[in-house]
Amino acid sequence: MKIMPKVGIVMGSDSDMKVMSKAADMLEKLGVEYEMTIISAHRMPDIFYDYAKSAEEKDYKVIIAGAGMAAHLPGMCAAIFPMPVIGIPMSGKNLDGQDALYSIVQMPPGIPVATVAIDGGANAAILAAKILATSDPELLGRLKAYSEEMKETVQAKSEKLDKLGYKEYMKQM
Amino acid sequence: MKIMPKVGIVMGSDSDMKVMSKAADMLEKLGVEYEMTIISAHRMPDIFYDYAKSAEEKDYKVIIAGAGMAAHLPGMCAAIFPMPVIGIPMSGKNLDGQDALYSIVQMPPGIPVATVAIDGGANAAILAAKILATSDPELLGRLKAYSEEMKETVQAKSEKLDKLGYKEYMKQM
Amino acid sequence: MKIMPKVGIVMGSDSDMKVMSKAADMLEKLGVEYEMTIISAHRMPDIFYDYAKSAEEKDYKVIIAGAGMAAHLPGMCAAIFPMPVIGIPMSGKNLDGQDALYSIVQMPPGIPVATVAIDGGANAAILAAKILATSDPELLGRLKAYSEEMKETVQAKSEKLDKLGYKEYMKQM
Amino acid sequence: MKIMPKVGIVMGSDSDMKVMSKAADMLEKLGVEYEMTIISAHRMPDIFYDYAKSAEEKDYKVIIAGAGMAAHLPGMCAAIFPMPVIGIPMSGKNLDGQDALYSIVQMPPGIPVATVAIDGGANAAILAAKILATSDPELLGRLKAYSEEMKETVQAKSEKLDKLGYKEYMKQM
Amino acid sequence: MKIMPKVGIVMGSDSDMKVMSKAADMLEKLGVEYEMTIISAHRMPDIFYDYAKSAEEKDYKVIIAGAGMAAHLPGMCAAIFPMPVIGIPMSGKNLDGQDALYSIVQMPPGIPVATVAIDGGANAAILAAKILATSDPELLGRLKAYSEEMKETVQAKSEKLDKLGYKEYMKQM
Amino acid sequence: MKIMPKVGIVMGSDSDMKVMSKAADMLEKLGVEYEMTIISAHRMPDIFYDYAKSAEEKDYKVIIAGAGMAAHLPGMCAAIFPMPVIGIPMSGKNLDGQDALYSIVQMPPGIPVATVAIDGGANAAILAAKILATSDPELLGRLKAYSEEMKETVQAKSEKLDKLGYKEYMKQM
Amino acid sequence: MKIMPKVGIVMGSDSDMKVMSKAADMLEKLGVEYEMTIISAHRMPDIFYDYAKSAEEKDYKVIIAGAGMAAHLPGMCAAIFPMPVIGIPMSGKNLDGQDALYSIVQMPPGIPVATVAIDGGANAAILAAKILATSDPELLGRLKAYSEEMKETVQAKSEKLDKLGYKEYMKQM
Amino acid sequence: MKIMPKVGIVMGSDSDMKVMSKAADMLEKLGVEYEMTIISAHRMPDIFYDYAKSAEEKDYKVIIAGAGMAAHLPGMCAAIFPMPVIGIPMSGKNLDGQDALYSIVQMPPGIPVATVAIDGGANAAILAAKILATSDPELLGRLKAYSEEMKETVQAKSEKLDKLGYKEYMKQM
Repeated sequence: MKIMPKVGIVMGSDSDMKVMSKAADMLEKLGVEYEMTIISAHRMPDIFYDYAKSAEEKDYKVIIAGAGMAAHLPGMCAAIFPMPVIGIPMSGKNLDGQDALYSIVQMPPGIPVATVAIDGGANAAILAAKILATSDPELLGRLKAYSEEMKETVQAKSEKLDKLGYKEYMKQM
Repeated sequence: MKIMPKVGIVMGSDSDMKVMSKAADMLEKLGVEYEMTIISAHRMPDIFYDYAKSAEEKDYKVIIAGAGMAAHLPGMCAAIFPMPVIGIPMSGKNLDGQDALYSIVQMPPGIPVATVAIDGGANAAILAAKILATSDPELLGRLKAYSEEMKETVQAKSEKLDKLGYKEYMKQM
Repeated sequence: MKIMPKVGIVMGSDSDMKVMSKAADMLEKLGVEYEMTIISAHRMPDIFYDYAKSAEEKDYKVIIAGAGMAAHLPGMCAAIFPMPVIGIPMSGKNLDGQDALYSIVQMPPGIPVATVAIDGGANAAILAAKILATSDPELLGRLKAYSEEMKETVQAKSEKLDKLGYKEYMKQM
Repeated sequence: MKIMPKVGIVMGSDSDMKVMSKAADMLEKLGVEYEMTIISAHRMPDIFYDYAKSAEEKDYKVIIAGAGMAAHLPGMCAAIFPMPVIGIPMSGKNLDGQDALYSIVQMPPGIPVATVAIDGGANAAILAAKILATSDPELLGRLKAYSEEMKETVQAKSEKLDKLGYKEYMKQM
Repeated sequence: MKIMPKVGIVMGSDSDMKVMSKAADMLEKLGVEYEMTIISAHRMPDIFYDYAKSAEEKDYKVIIAGAGMAAHLPGMCAAIFPMPVIGIPMSGKNLDGQDALYSIVQMPPGIPVATVAIDGGANAAILAAKILATSDPELLGRLKAYSEEMKETVQAKSEKLDKLGYKEYMKQM
Repeated sequence: MKIMPKVGIVMGSDSDMKVMSKAADMLEKLGVEYEMTIISAHRMPDIFYDYAKSAEEKDYKVIIAGAGMAAHLPGMCAAIFPMPVIGIPMSGKNLDGQDALYSIVQMPPGIPVATVAIDGGANAAILAAKILATSDPELLGRLKAYSEEMKETVQAKSEKLDKLGYKEYMKQM
Repeated sequence: MKIMPKVGIVMGSDSDMKVMSKAADMLEKLGVEYEMTIISAHRMPDIFYDYAKSAEEKDYKVIIAGAGMAAHLPGMCAAIFPMPVIGIPMSGKNLDGQDALYSIVQMPPGIPVATVAIDGGANAAILAAKILATSDPELLGRLKAYSEEMKETVQAKSEKLDKLGYKEYMKQM
Repeated sequence: MKIMPKVGIVMGSDSDMKVMSKAADMLEKLGVEYEMTIISAHRMPDIFYDYAKSAEEKDYKVIIAGAGMAAHLPGMCAAIFPMPVIGIPMSGKNLDGQDALYSIVQMPPGIPVATVAIDGGANAAILAAKILATSDPELLGRLKAYSEEMKETVQAKSEKLDKLGYKEYMKQM
């Protein structure tokens, strides 16, 4: 499946896997090749450095990086990799991901990280696909189809609510 | 100058101009064509809808949207435009932009906004350029040159500090 | 039951149903007709637009809109519908609804949303009834009766506490 | 001018006058009669009680109450007055109005306050007018005209920006 | 037991009983007479008013008032009762009591509430006893004995830890 | 003036003087004797310990302690002095006093600090007077007179507003 | 085991033991002698005082102090003990440790506390070891070995992920 | 002056100089040699890596790193340098340094940063000196002298206040 991945998914710890796997699931759904790995910018700075430096050579176009607490992984990727880095702030035991959100979104001038919602694994993948779709009309088509699908899902629920009334609807939830 | 703009810059109010102009300045520096306009999703929803819907036809590849307070402009752009939307949370009289940050970054599953730092006008432009650079090697080159330039600026300061000592350095700031 | 509804209840996702159903329950208790539906401003902007635009024709006087995270639904309703929109910020997995509160209450000048407490489904309904009661003396009477009922409920508890003492009272809770 | 006021504007201290006057300005613009007064729920609880109790007799349909810090005025009005109370959280020396926002919006079940943005004087007035407009087609017309006016103001700015470019536009700000 | 109570304990809802009962437990332990009741300033403003006004006649010296969310009960007591009011902010479903803390502690000039920690039932009682102890040497003696008791409890734990080591200590917890 | 002071006012640094002087002003107004001093629990722990330990012997009944940042002074006073300690959180260069508020109000079980609003110098003094008034009917009388005075001040403003209208009133502010 | 301990571990309550034990575990792993005790600065100020004063005589080089809520223990240690004090903010029932974080990190000029993450028991121990390692090359060696070990643990996970793919990897978690 | 520096002071931008210079001032006062430089982990990651890697060879014992916003510099130093890293969160245009505080203090297990107060330049230096003093009795002596000096400064103010009274004291501030 991993022929010519354009998106690198990287997390600092496998405790982030539950959220990061949603990014992978969504990329698969949208037909975007990716590579997923675990690299800690803090615990293995050399290996991290090589990863970020070689990402362009490996022909990555986007990196999705997830991290919690004082989340440095996305920002350090953005310092090295010249194309877009998408950051996912992870919620943890305390602070509901507010610490990670600030550590990722508040990047200083010159080094942006494209930040998505706390624990927003699927959205990171959709954003990566939207970025690739700026030069890939077929992928853009798949994104539009996915939008249509989301819309139809909500519409089906709306019609069901209309038919059943909310009391019955809730019983079936 | 505005031949074939690929980036739309949109703000809800001209009180956002000071930050949004930094996005325009940076796009010019990086040689990226753009169009800038003022459209309020709240005060002129019809015109906003037309804007967001026609953005793809106009061949925009990225929209940069800035807004303050209960900032809906970036998210509503992202609901309609199928390619990346970059959101800039604006600080205002109260709350230091925390309200706009949440209103932009905490998008629900399916509709990501690529959020940058509060008042991060220049970073939004750099991120837009990085997105376009995924399929534009020349722009990628200009981005790398800009990175080099930032690095040299800091290095020059570092050397100056080394030479002068911090007491003298501070006098010259 | 749905003869000439004056209140539209709208939510972006059926995950909001638990809170929104409390609004419906309270409107029923107060004898106010309503229509409830699920429409996402993000996932189906066209349908949302039609809904908000046609609300006045359908003779709605108030819209109650609930949303979580970067909650745009209430504010976008208020941008289109010319009568009062009541917004309910929903708590979600993270941030305890603080994100939705800011996204709803911090509306820019010109476009107010009448915001109630986080997860305040019943209060949204009472506020809608109070709005309608400004021109409906019978409904005002029912609201006063409901106030009296609340008062009696607390008084009964107070008397029970007086009689039993708190230790026994707590055992019976 | 004060023939048959339908809106009571009340503030706890004249330090709130700068924001509350914007509510009065807007009501005048929209042709809504009002009465403005200063009453502290904390410093003169008896007088406050009489005010809130007699508001219905005086034929008020809406009360707009502004307060800062541990803002109790809006909530105590809502506990006594049976029709809508609109609360304006005031920012003060510290905390940017976050304290007042929580003290106003987080009302317990049964006693809603229709909360607007921090320092949102004009929006409180517009919301009051929207409430009255549920049974006053002429006022509804004036509200729609005001919406149109807001839209045209933004459009004029948009056209000016288009014509001048942002650099020239900023010089003229 | 209720001969000549000097402390009134009041809560707005019996959902606050779990915390308020700790205040009662502690007052009993310290030998301070009290009366506990449930009165909502929002749901029964008249009865609340009578309660606060008659508290001085009933010879109360201190009122302990607990409330959650937009907690007005302590502040409204302090507006009417001329002696100390102790406020306990209650945590609720959302916001961890931060809303109640602000609503209680941030009282405007002239009307202080002696605020204790979120959910600090026992501490409210100790503070009430300390207030009464300013003119009651015997109660002061009991407070000192309680302090001694707290100290000995910690010392006993410290010695146990010393003897067992932390691994064994934790097993016995 | 300093015959038999019953209230000790203590601050950790003379940068707190502006707020603490308001406590002194108010105590003078209410006819309560006090002693004011500067003692840092952090910079001079020995002297602080002696101060807190000797406070009872000096016949203090209440200590008012103000501190900013990681404000330990009020809590450490409360650990040693057996009667009420009132804490004033000071705002500083950053965080608007939120740090000091938490450091003072969130005391662990057993050691309450009666916390007032951020920068609430006058309120701390009023609370101290209310505490002393539990056994001093004359002081209670002065407190009631002060309440009356506050009420009359607001009433005078209310009448002035009534007479002048808000536009003229604001000009005279 | 307790021959010549260089690190004192102190907590205010045995409810902090779960986090503090991780500090002890890590010091054992790194071969650093320590003594652990329970002392409350609030409940036993005299004993606390003796502890902090005698720490230098006992040849402690570092104190690790953990506390929750209005956490004064680390700061008061730092006021008395002349060598480094490491503070661990504890999360509690409410506020996720934000209160303790501010109470520990926001120390005033002159009295720093080396603050680590909320509930960061292991990190406090590693920091203590790093401090001792500034004059202990063998300990520095053990710290480097531990870093290597952390790196290898992540690498092993990375290789496992590579081999299994994330779907299989997650099943084995 | 720069013979055998033991402390490296590093900042990401010369906008941090005002706070960082206070660290240098204090180190000079305490007689601790240091080297100060400007290196951005984001703008010049290669140079940063070399700096952090060579710090041990240069015989640094402590690094003091200051940064604002999504402050990664201290944490990345701590990932590479095996001895203590002290982090200073800088306040900036928005958020009062809360973003930098979280980005520095909330380090994941294994990689602590010794965090001091927001803008706490002097405290970072004192902490560095305390760390070095664990093996340098003369420096420990100078630290104790500095503590004594701080104490005397406060005492002098206390005596002045005693002599002048607060009204006169304030006039002379």
